[in-house]
Amino acid sequence: MTLLSALAGDPEIEALLSDAAQLDAMLAFERALAEASAETGFISEDAAAAIGGAVTGFTPDWDGLEAGMAQDGVVVPALVKQLKSGLPEPHRTALHKGATSQDVTDTALMLQLAKVFDVYEARLTALLDTLDALAAEHGGKPLMAHTRMQVALPTTWGAKLSSWSEPLKRQLRALVSMRRTLLVVQLGGPVGDRGSFDGHGDAIAAAMARKLDLGLATPWQATRDPIVALGSLLAQISGALGKLGMDIALLAQNEVGAVRLAGGGGSSAMAHKSNPINAEVLVALARYNAGLSGTLNQALVHENERSGAAWTLEWLTLPPMLVATGASLRLASLLLGQLTIAVID
Amino acid sequence: MTLLSALAGDPEIEALLSDAAQLDAMLAFERALAEASAETGFISEDAAAAIGGAVTGFTPDWDGLEAGMAQDGVVVPALVKQLKSGLPEPHRTALHKGATSQDVTDTALMLQLAKVFDVYEARLTALLDTLDALAAEHGGKPLMAHTRMQVALPTTWGAKLSSWSEPLKRQLRALVSMRRTLLVVQLGGPVGDRGSFDGHGDAIAAAMARKLDLGLATPWQATRDPIVALGSLLAQISGALGKLGMDIALLAQNEVGAVRLAGGGGSSAMAHKSNPINAEVLVALARYNAGLSGTLNQALVHENERSGAAWTLEWLTLPPMLVATGASLRLASLLLGQLTIAVID
Amino acid sequence: MTLLSALAGDPEIEALLSDAAQLDAMLAFERALAEASAETGFISEDAAAAIGGAVTGFTPDWDGLEAGMAQDGVVVPALVKQLKSGLPEPHRTALHKGATSQDVTDTALMLQLAKVFDVYEARLTALLDTLDALAAEHGGKPLMAHTRMQVALPTTWGAKLSSWSEPLKRQLRALVSMRRTLLVVQLGGPVGDRGSFDGHGDAIAAAMARKLDLGLATPWQATRDPIVALGSLLAQISGALGKLGMDIALLAQNEVGAVRLAGGGGSSAMAHKSNPINAEVLVALARYNAGLSGTLNQALVHENERSGAAWTLEWLTLPPMLVATGASLRLASLLLGQLTIAVID
Amino acid sequence: MTLLSALAGDPEIEALLSDAAQLDAMLAFERALAEASAETGFISEDAAAAIGGAVTGFTPDWDGLEAGMAQDGVVVPALVKQLKSGLPEPHRTALHKGATSQDVTDTALMLQLAKVFDVYEARLTALLDTLDALAAEHGGKPLMAHTRMQVALPTTWGAKLSSWSEPLKRQLRALVSMRRTLLVVQLGGPVGDRGSFDGHGDAIAAAMARKLDLGLATPWQATRDPIVALGSLLAQISGALGKLGMDIALLAQNEVGAVRLAGGGGSSAMAHKSNPINAEVLVALARYNAGLSGTLNQALVHENERSGAAWTLEWLTLPPMLVATGASLRLASLLLGQLTIAVID
Repeated sequence: MTLLSALAGDPEIEALLSDAAQLDAMLAFERALAEASAETGFISEDAAAAIGGAVTGFTPDWDGLEAGMAQDGVVVPALVKQLKSGLPEPHRTALHKGATSQDVTDTALMLQLAKVFDVYEARLTALLDTLDALAAEHGGKPLMAHTRMQVALPTTWGAKLSSWSEPLKRQLRALVSMRRTLLVVQLGGPVGDRGSFDGHGDAIAAAMARKLDLGLATPWQATRDPIVALGSLLAQISGALGKLGMDIALLAQNEVGAVRLAGGGGSSAMAHKSNPINAEVLVALARYNAGLSGTLNQALVHENERSGAAWTLEWLTLPPMLVATGASLRLASLLLGQLTIAVID
Repeated sequence: MTLLSALAGDPEIEALLSDAAQLDAMLAFERALAEASAETGFISEDAAAAIGGAVTGFTPDWDGLEAGMAQDGVVVPALVKQLKSGLPEPHRTALHKGATSQDVTDTALMLQLAKVFDVYEARLTALLDTLDALAAEHGGKPLMAHTRMQVALPTTWGAKLSSWSEPLKRQLRALVSMRRTLLVVQLGGPVGDRGSFDGHGDAIAAAMARKLDLGLATPWQATRDPIVALGSLLAQISGALGKLGMDIALLAQNEVGAVRLAGGGGSSAMAHKSNPINAEVLVALARYNAGLSGTLNQALVHENERSGAAWTLEWLTLPPMLVATGASLRLASLLLGQLTIAVID
Repeated sequence: MTLLSALAGDPEIEALLSDAAQLDAMLAFERALAEASAETGFISEDAAAAIGGAVTGFTPDWDGLEAGMAQDGVVVPALVKQLKSGLPEPHRTALHKGATSQDVTDTALMLQLAKVFDVYEARLTALLDTLDALAAEHGGKPLMAHTRMQVALPTTWGAKLSSWSEPLKRQLRALVSMRRTLLVVQLGGPVGDRGSFDGHGDAIAAAMARKLDLGLATPWQATRDPIVALGSLLAQISGALGKLGMDIALLAQNEVGAVRLAGGGGSSAMAHKSNPINAEVLVALARYNAGLSGTLNQALVHENERSGAAWTLEWLTLPPMLVATGASLRLASLLLGQLTIAVID
Repeated sequence: MTLLSALAGDPEIEALLSDAAQLDAMLAFERALAEASAETGFISEDAAAAIGGAVTGFTPDWDGLEAGMAQDGVVVPALVKQLKSGLPEPHRTALHKGATSQDVTDTALMLQLAKVFDVYEARLTALLDTLDALAAEHGGKPLMAHTRMQVALPTTWGAKLSSWSEPLKRQLRALVSMRRTLLVVQLGGPVGDRGSFDGHGDAIAAAMARKLDLGLATPWQATRDPIVALGSLLAQISGALGKLGMDIALLAQNEVGAVRLAGGGGSSAMAHKSNPINAEVLVALARYNAGLSGTLNQALVHENERSGAAWTLEWLTLPPMLVATGASLRLASLLLGQLTIAVID
């Protein structure tokens, strides 16, 4: 873990997006492809069994994978080559048959995202529970509302807490519904039309979806709007929590004192300070994800049947957004745990 | 119309977002508020009738509205003042009673957006019809696929056309579903808790929603995720059409010649040129909306019960995105009309 | 003027960027090109005189220019055609000879920018004078410093005012120095190598630079980093003023009360409010320009000798940034005029 | 090294930005502060000697530093605490005396940037040498120019190569000049006014600048425009190289064939492919840095004397930009090494 990650990262999400996790997902793809291909008669049962064995016993040569990544722009050719070397010669052509690098990479991402979604959903649910509990306890208490940075009129903590939780409820629902629209198999072959599967493509894709617990879809290698929609949702989650952080930082100002924060950050020079670190980092993460979400959108301009430039841009932007979103959820939970609603006499 | 607007704008959408259109929508709000308030007994029937008359006969003093906008950061206080001067003294307090500027402004935006959505839906539907017609006629024709900017393998025009239309189908569905989730009444009063309506707030909001043909929602003045979700959808539409534009620009390269474009742009210096102007502008609009979508996301960090900074940022970003999206749809239709799929011997 | 422009726009800058102003600058280009071409013998003195006359007496057909803009992606072909119709037949080929649309458009932008820079420099200078005057009067007064949204230790108004003025001083210097690096003639001909000027290109460019009071440079039609550097400077100016606005909004909070603002914005519902409108709009403009600056950067990826997509993206982003920067300067001046530094007992 | 880093990262720059490198720079700050403070009499010579010894022999407890980072939002309080535990009791108050966490962090960044600049300058110089050599060999050869994605007129490789090198020359000059304007000591104390140094602040800062080979400046903890200007320069470098990459990808299209690339990327499905991986990644990095540059700009809105939110946003955006810029330079060099200019018969 880097120092910055200790503050603004998320070890759990980072692990789910690690090279090792991606490799596992890619191996799951190759195994499922082989099994599905055998079921439809596209490759032999023997080949599928051999591939399953090779996948199970596979030990990657990471240096080789890195070199392949740098050479080919995707790790898959090097990975397939390494996997083939562990297969008996007659079954080698059955491995990865009909598929292209993007099928592996995109489907692996979906498998990784499914686990990331598990974490997000659990954290969002817990956060909403916390907000509900705060509302149950403090909802009727008075709070001075502020509009345009000025004192407005009294409102209640119930209204404030509801303004924090309502977006999160919508976002939790959107996340759940994205499991159907986003988390789907990618299987298209070299140019995305399943022509390389000799008529078995649709059946293989359907069987793979079942095996991998993903949805089924026509190939989408060059139409990335579901990825971009995910990016927007991530920015909305971080944004909702950034608003929560900003509110708390404003309410915790010494002069306002509507909330107190336990365990605020210390200063190397001012012993009296109790800084609203987690609130501030929530704001920073909101702005970071907002910006990255716009950049991810640039990847929609995807040249022809596959754009290396647009696809690489996704790799540069989506994973940090996933981590930042996880970090936002993590820190929001910490921050609410630090929060004391001030008693107003 | 400015010169740039002639190229990359959209007069129809610009008109729906004009000051005049906004004023109409704001007046519709005040009328509906008065009628709904009378129905629930929050104001008298006489007052509502007087307000309806004042709204009908209202002639704005635009200079005064501009000055009010500059002074107050919203046009509503000046507008309400002008409206009041046309009302008999006893009914003046009934006008805008309980409401705040943001109620008017946000609800007016929803009314304007409803009309913008009509245009988008019609254009998306027409575009999909055009793509379907092209697929019916040319879907079986061969096309050389290109991956990573290199010749890949032959595919069909059917696959290409489908890669253009599938995102648009998703986006049309999303737009339709956003009518329910986004196009809702805003009614919260000064600090967004409907406290200013003396217990009538929910009923008034419900009646207004019915009268204005909008959905009903709890106040959302500081939780802007539905606005940001719209921005993402706009960027996705422009992005999908930017991909279409980029594909056509690449396929229309002289050396590739997979398509020809009738009526391409002329050059002041090279008489032989036939430039794929509309395709290029589609790419520019995609990148523009992508960027603005990220900036709009920054507005989620909304301080307390109302942030003038975040709200103004919405006004700076959302309208240009709405125009750019309209322009993308307009130009995509023009571009497909220029397109001839080359016969390959 | 639109309502939004009344709040967050800048009529003076908008006028300098209007179609009419652009047309004037384009006509100045054609006149200077003709004169310079005659001086080097590339066209006849008679032709230059005729062109000068045609330019002087030119009345544009705006509908035709709009149609040309939509058709060609640039207005120049239509403009040249209109200008030619006012020229005697023998001199028509001398008009615009050797030049391309981009030469006209880019050089016209430089002429417009020179005037925009005049406004910026005057406003920055005036703003710095105001800050200096405030420092002279209040610099020694105590002010509670706030770090990380918490009370820190006492500092002085001198330190605060200096933190506002130092970036502006740097930006004023950068603006002045950009007159040399950015405000240069564009003259390249169709593909940007001056080949169309039969060896006279360098001399014509030098003479044009002199006549138009611009710098001299090799053609830069596809290397737009000076434009992007301008965008960054604009965002830095708006950013510095956004920081000033944010500070004032924070200091003007009722609970803090370190400053008071005269003539704050009114509320349609809360008569006691005095909203820091100008401070908030400064923050909004800073975030808007920040985002647009990133989008403008996308235009650096300029395909080959001229990218219509990248160039159009500049047109969509740079002018709003220029207006927003002007508005930032305008509003900062208004805001400082409203400011009263609170007396601390 | 991660797989993505193998493709689109830069191990050399990553190392210069690692936690270990940051720690070294922070220790250099504390040593220089102690020495400078002793020179001016702000601490004793004995204390400075003891601090120098403690720094030299320091072994960090990384877990403690991570915990401190998460707690305080900066690593410095934990680091100072660890350092103090290695000092004799009487000298403990002399360590870090007068300074604040931001002084350490910002100055350490400057020390790290100085080394990053060394790498950039060397790579830019080498790249310009390569482009010069290509121009010397091929400058006179014909090349078909393309404007607006269409064949234009013949130009020369000299013009093309010059369009690649001119921005890089400007950027190298800007980088060199930024050593003076950006690479400066930060020394302000808790609220940035050097009040904590009892009148010795200016002298200590000057001595530290000399010792650390940095420039001298007034405290800039809340005025981050030089950081943002660096971000813009990074985006300009990546953008210039993204343009180079895009040009090469377009010229290397099979149908165009103006260049050939040795050692192109392989496909897991299409053996004949030779993909312009490095060219594509250059485009991706350009778009990535463009976007991040806009997001970094958001950090200019820095609340009062220190904004944790804005500062953390810098940490999230600047380091990835520095790496991406390094990667752009690295890959551009690789790409030019792969390039063969096609012989046109």
